[in-house]
Amino acid sequence: MADEKALTRRADDFSAWYNEVVLRAELADYSPVRGSMVIRPYGYGIWELMQRALDDRFKATGHVNAYFPLFIPQSFIAREAQHVEGFAKEMAVVTHTRLKVVEGEGLVVDPESKLEEPLIVRPTSETIIYAMFAKWVRSYRDLPLLINQWANVVRWEMRTRLFLRTAEFLWQEGHTAHATEAEASEEAQRMLGVYREFMEQWMAMPPVTGQKSESEKFPGAVRTHACEALMQDNRALQAGTSHMLGQNFSRQFDLRFQTETGGEDYAWNTSWGVSTRLVGGLVMTHGDDAGLVVPPRLAPIQVVIVPIYRSDEERALVLAKAAQVASALRAANVRVHVDDRDTLKPGAKFYEWERKGVPVRVEIGPRDVANGKLVVVLRTEVPGLARKQVLAEQEAIAGLPAQLEAYQSGLREQALRRREENSHRGVESYDALREIIEGPGGFVYAGWCGSAVCEEKVKADTKATIRVLPDEEFRSSPAPGRCVVCGGEARAEAIWARAY
Amino acid sequence: MADEKALTRRADDFSAWYNEVVLRAELADYSPVRGSMVIRPYGYGIWELMQRALDDRFKATGHVNAYFPLFIPQSFIAREAQHVEGFAKEMAVVTHTRLKVVEGEGLVVDPESKLEEPLIVRPTSETIIYAMFAKWVRSYRDLPLLINQWANVVRWEMRTRLFLRTAEFLWQEGHTAHATEAEASEEAQRMLGVYREFMEQWMAMPPVTGQKSESEKFPGAVRTHACEALMQDNRALQAGTSHMLGQNFSRQFDLRFQTETGGEDYAWNTSWGVSTRLVGGLVMTHGDDAGLVVPPRLAPIQVVIVPIYRSDEERALVLAKAAQVASALRAANVRVHVDDRDTLKPGAKFYEWERKGVPVRVEIGPRDVANGKLVVVLRTEVPGLARKQVLAEQEAIAGLPAQLEAYQSGLREQALRRREENSHRGVESYDALREIIEGPGGFVYAGWCGSAVCEEKVKADTKATIRVLPDEEFRSSPAPGRCVVCGGEARAEAIWARAY
Repeated sequence: MADEKALTRRADDFSAWYNEVVLRAELADYSPVRGSMVIRPYGYGIWELMQRALDDRFKATGHVNAYFPLFIPQSFIAREAQHVEGFAKEMAVVTHTRLKVVEGEGLVVDPESKLEEPLIVRPTSETIIYAMFAKWVRSYRDLPLLINQWANVVRWEMRTRLFLRTAEFLWQEGHTAHATEAEASEEAQRMLGVYREFMEQWMAMPPVTGQKSESEKFPGAVRTHACEALMQDNRALQAGTSHMLGQNFSRQFDLRFQTETGGEDYAWNTSWGVSTRLVGGLVMTHGDDAGLVVPPRLAPIQVVIVPIYRSDEERALVLAKAAQVASALRAANVRVHVDDRDTLKPGAKFYEWERKGVPVRVEIGPRDVANGKLVVVLRTEVPGLARKQVLAEQEAIAGLPAQLEAYQSGLREQALRRREENSHRGVESYDALREIIEGPGGFVYAGWCGSAVCEEKVKADTKATIRVLPDEEFRSSPAPGRCVVCGGEARAEAIWARAY
Repeated sequence: MADEKALTRRADDFSAWYNEVVLRAELADYSPVRGSMVIRPYGYGIWELMQRALDDRFKATGHVNAYFPLFIPQSFIAREAQHVEGFAKEMAVVTHTRLKVVEGEGLVVDPESKLEEPLIVRPTSETIIYAMFAKWVRSYRDLPLLINQWANVVRWEMRTRLFLRTAEFLWQEGHTAHATEAEASEEAQRMLGVYREFMEQWMAMPPVTGQKSESEKFPGAVRTHACEALMQDNRALQAGTSHMLGQNFSRQFDLRFQTETGGEDYAWNTSWGVSTRLVGGLVMTHGDDAGLVVPPRLAPIQVVIVPIYRSDEERALVLAKAAQVASALRAANVRVHVDDRDTLKPGAKFYEWERKGVPVRVEIGPRDVANGKLVVVLRTEVPGLARKQVLAEQEAIAGLPAQLEAYQSGLREQALRRREENSHRGVESYDALREIIEGPGGFVYAGWCGSAVCEEKVKADTKATIRVLPDEEFRSSPAPGRCVVCGGEARAEAIWARAY
C-alpha cells in the first residue's frame, strides 16, 4: 500500500503537488461522478473537527441549527434578479421522478414522471430559507432569527479540483433576519470575525478581511465581506464570506414584520458560509514537499506512536509501553494512535504519517523502554521548537499538550510571516503591479478609483482580481492616493491577487 | 404566537394529533417543495442529540465517517438486479445542468445542458460506495473497511408525512466490507444491537428485533434485520435496519481482495441505517394530549425555569435566583433554559413548554426565593416519581440530574409496558388475528409457514405485514406449531402489525 514514489515538489508544480498530497494523504478521491469527489475518512476527520469548532462558535453567538430542503423550485431562483444572474449558469436540474425498465433498452427515465416545475438542487439556500422565515416571523418579537444549516450544495462546475472546486460540496450556511439594518450589519461583521478567529486559531491560516467589490460580491447581497488567505503559491483563497443582504430577499419573499412602534417593515438579512474548501486551504497553507502538515487542533491524530522492535519479546515490551503512553496522553485529551501494524517497517510508517501530516511522532524502542525515554519528533520545523527530542517519559507525556499548542502557534506565525512577506504594499505603478502578479505573485495592495473598468482591465491583463478592499487594520498607511490602473483619485485601497 | 387552541386528542384522531404536535412543538414545518419538510431548530436539536449519541457508538465500535457523492450515475443503479427493482420507482432524476433566461419566457431549462447519462439523487448509497471500496481494497489487510456517512437521501414519495415519510430525509448509512461471511454477519448483528441500545437507552423506545421476510427485506440484501417499535396507536414503526448484503454488491462492483492464503475473493458487505424518522417515532411513543414528551437524554432543553413575578422588584429578585439556579444546573451538565420573556404570562409559558415536551419545569416566585424553595414539575407522570414537588433549593439542584435519569427510565418502562400489553402472543386462528389487527391493533405473534402467499393474504385482507421474524429473546414459548393463515406447519414465528 505504501506508495513509495516521492511527491512532486511544490516549486516544480504546485498544482500537481496539491493533488498528490490530497490523494496520498487519503483526504479525498475522485469519484465516478464527474465533478464530484469522495471525502475519505481522514479528510472527513479534519472536516468534523472544523465543524465542531465552528458549530461551537455559532452556538456561542446565539445561533441554532435547522435543515431546509435540498430542492428549490425553479421559480424561487428566478425571483431575486441579481441572484438569478449569478447562479443560473451552473445548476443541477431535477426534471423527472421515476425510472422504468423498458424491454431492450434497460433502465430509462420515465417520461410520464416529468415534473411540472423543475426543481433545482440548491446552489445556496437564501430563497427557500427566507420563504420559510416569512411563514414564521410576525412581529419584532420573533426577531432576530439566527439559523445555521450544515448541508451539501451543488454548483455545476466545468473545471473541478479536489476540495477547491467541485460540483457538490459540503458547507454551512448561516441565515439571519433582523429588525434593523444596523443589527444585520453588525451580524455580518460578527460572523466574519468568527470565521477569522477560526482560521487563525484552528487552521493556523491567518486571513486578511475586507469587503468585496461590486463585481465580486455575492449575487443578491448589498455587501459581501470575506476572509482571503494566501496560499504557498502566492495565490489567494477566498476562505469564507459573510453577506449583508439588506432587504433584497425579504422583499422578494415577503418577509415582513410588525415593528415595535406598530408599523410594518421588511426584515434585514445576512447569510454567511464556509465549506470543505477550507480543507484545501489547510493543505496549501501548511503542506510541504513531504506531504500534508495538519495543525494540531484540527488533527484527527495528534500523536502517532510508532513502536520499534525486532523480536517478539521486544515487540511485547514496546507495545505494552506504547499502550501505557497512549492511555496517559488520552487522559490529557490528546488524540493518539498506536501504529501496531506488523506489515510495515518503522521507516515506512514514519513516511506514511509524515504524508498524513500528523503533528507529533513518538518512537519507542526497547532501549527507550529500558532508559525510561521517548523520542518525540515534530512533523515539521517551526521556529523556537526542537524538531526531535529525546525526553524522559514522564516529562514527554506531561509536556505534549503544551508542545502541541506551541507547534500550533508556530505554524500560525510561519503562515502569517509568509503572508506578510508576500504582501506588496504601496505599489503605485501598473507595471509594478503586473510584474508582481505575473512574477512571484502575492497580495498587491494598491489604490483603486472604484471603477469596474479599471478592475476589469487588471483581470483581463493579469487574471488578478480584487480580493477585498481591506478592513481598517489591514490598510496601508499612508493610504494610496491614486488608482494603480488609471492614475485617477483612489477611492479605496484594494488587494489584488490571482485566486483559486 | 401562543396558539391556545387545544390539540386534537390521540383517541379521537391519532394522525391529526401527530401532525399538530409536530407543527406546534415547532419540530418541523411543511415547505413549498412538495414532499420535502423543513426541520426547525427545536426538532433539529433533538436530531443533533440523536446524531451525537449514535456517532459516539459508531466510533466506539471502530467506524469512521466519510462522505460520498449525492449523485449516482443511472447505470450504477441498474447493476444490482433486485436493487433496481426495489428503488427504480421513486427517484429524483437530474437531467440538465443549466438554466437560461429566454426573452418572454423567463428562466428555463437550457436544453443544450442535457446530460448524456442522467444522474440519480441517491436513494441510498450502496452502489457508489462499493464502487469506491473497489478502488481502495486490494488485500485482506485492507479489511474490514468500516465506514459511515451522515447524509440526505431522496425517495420520491407520493404520500408524505412529516418525519415519517418525506421525499428527502436525513440519515446515516453505514457501509462495511469484510473478508469473511461470518465477520459480515456479526457486523450486521452488532449494528442492530447498537440501534436497539440507542432506542432503549436514549429514545426510551424499546423495539423488538428480528429478521425481515423475503418480501420485506432491503432490495439487494441477503438478510435484513430490523428494530420495530410499537407506537401508541398500535401501529409498528420500522425504526432501524441492518442488512447482510453478502457478496451481491461486491460482485457487481468488482470489490475483490487477495485473501490471506493468496487466493482471491469478493468482499462481504453490510449496510445499516437510521433516519430522522426516529424523531417521528419519539413523538408517537411518548407524546400525550398536551403535546410532545421528550426523554431527557434527547431533550435540547432538559429543564426550563419559569420565573413568576408581578412587580419590577420581584422580577429582579426572581430572575437573579433563576440565573443562579441555571448556572448551578449547567455546572452539573444539565441543559437548562431560563424563560425570561416579559411578553407571556407564566401560564402561557407552562403551556408552551408542555407542548414542547421539556422534561422538567422549575417555577420560582418571590415567596420561593424567600423560603429557599423551588417548585419542580415533571412534564408527565411516570410511576414512582412525584409529578410536582416543592423542594429546598440545594436539594432540588443536587437531585435534578438523578431525577432526569429516573424520569428517562420511567418513560422507557412505560413504553415497554405498553408494547407488551399490546403484544398478542399465541394467536392461533386467522379470525383472531384479523380481529386484533382490525380492532385494537398491536403486535400479533403467530406461526407462519414461510410462504409468500400466506403473507400476501394477510396484507390484502388486513393491511398488516410481517414486521419481523423475532430474534430469540422475543420468541414465544412454546413456539407456534401451525401457520396462522393456512394451518400448515409453522417454519417460524412472525410478528404481524399494521405499520407506518
